[in-house]
Amino acid sequence: MNEETIEAVVFDVYGTLFGFGRLAERARAIVGDVPLLDRWRTKQLEHSFLRTILGEYEDFWVITAQALDAACEQLELELLPEEREHLLQGWLELDPFPETAMALERLAERGLRLAVLSNGSPMMLEQLLRMAGLREWFEAVLSADAVRRYKPSPAVYALAPAHLVVPPERILFCSANGFDVAGALRYGFRVCWVDRTGSALDALGKQPHRTVQSLTELSEQL
Amino acid sequence: MNEETIEAVVFDVYGTLFGFGRLAERARAIVGDVPLLDRWRTKQLEHSFLRTILGEYEDFWVITAQALDAACEQLELELLPEEREHLLQGWLELDPFPETAMALERLAERGLRLAVLSNGSPMMLEQLLRMAGLREWFEAVLSADAVRRYKPSPAVYALAPAHLVVPPERILFCSANGFDVAGALRYGFRVCWVDRTGSALDALGKQPHRTVQSLTELSEQL
Repeated sequence: MNEETIEAVVFDVYGTLFGFGRLAERARAIVGDVPLLDRWRTKQLEHSFLRTILGEYEDFWVITAQALDAACEQLELELLPEEREHLLQGWLELDPFPETAMALERLAERGLRLAVLSNGSPMMLEQLLRMAGLREWFEAVLSADAVRRYKPSPAVYALAPAHLVVPPERILFCSANGFDVAGALRYGFRVCWVDRTGSALDALGKQPHRTVQSLTELSEQL
Repeated sequence: MNEETIEAVVFDVYGTLFGFGRLAERARAIVGDVPLLDRWRTKQLEHSFLRTILGEYEDFWVITAQALDAACEQLELELLPEEREHLLQGWLELDPFPETAMALERLAERGLRLAVLSNGSPMMLEQLLRMAGLREWFEAVLSADAVRRYKPSPAVYALAPAHLVVPPERILFCSANGFDVAGALRYGFRVCWVDRTGSALDALGKQPHRTVQSLTELSEQL
């Protein structure tokens, strides 16, 4: 990979720039050891995939709420309205990973253009990035909402080159999510898998151009 | 629902006509209490959804094999080649639910036309139905392979009315899988959810026209 050709770095958001630790704590405080957050996240992704296949778009905030309800039904949990609200609100108040701000600063200093490209709705992304004080680093906050379907649909990835006016092969796309690595590779980006846990990558048989354990590691390499 | 308008009953296969009990035993004999089959089935569905979104078709037999490998990697299991083969082969040797044959016979006696519509490949479906002695009941064995994408894509459901030359509202589609109920409802079939376990239905907020606990119950109602 010739690094000199990379002009922009585009980040996935949930699980890549922001972790779920704080949301997991909220869930634990309400339901104890029941694996609600795991089921919720799984349902959220499943619903976004299924709605994309069905051609039946719903806002990601609605999908997130419906996925919580579906997860609770399956786990036979009944939340109070204020507990449900508190959990949902958690998506707007996630913590960035400890190294996120410093890594973004370093990449910006190198003259790289930075953007995010996420399944999150514009409202969710803007609130989250502002709350965390990270909004200023990104020249674009791109949401799947603009094309009314979800990653890994090629139409979502196409937002980045169109908006930045940079060809896909000069964009490094960073994600911690296997399905996102698969979609970004297929679309034609350079792809970096952020593997914080040493887990197995499931990117439908494809291999990313690089793998890092943290955004710090990425920022030191570019 | 006016039952007199139903001319054909179309069945999903995996989980609806056939159960996973025998495959679960095979998995247990090899890996013990590790939840391999659950993870495998989850990965199989996820891969079929993702490949449909990516527009990157793979035969369902290949998807099933790749899903097994991905599940093993995540669970840090290493199978011997013959164990892997034995598990894969299990998809061709599933047991029908105990009531399946009798229910099909009863429905056929009522003059209803019967078909299956599945994500399984033609090879997988033909072998499974023949092995179980059920092939004769179906005038059509329809596979998603014909349109190179997977349920719940509307293009897959469209195979049934096209092949049977019966409008969707005169077809009763039966499935035990929530995403399949969602897709079939959206497509315009009459839909029966087969709920053997009393679990919560996740059909993206939609409700089936009827719910039965077994195929016997269905065959008594039509």
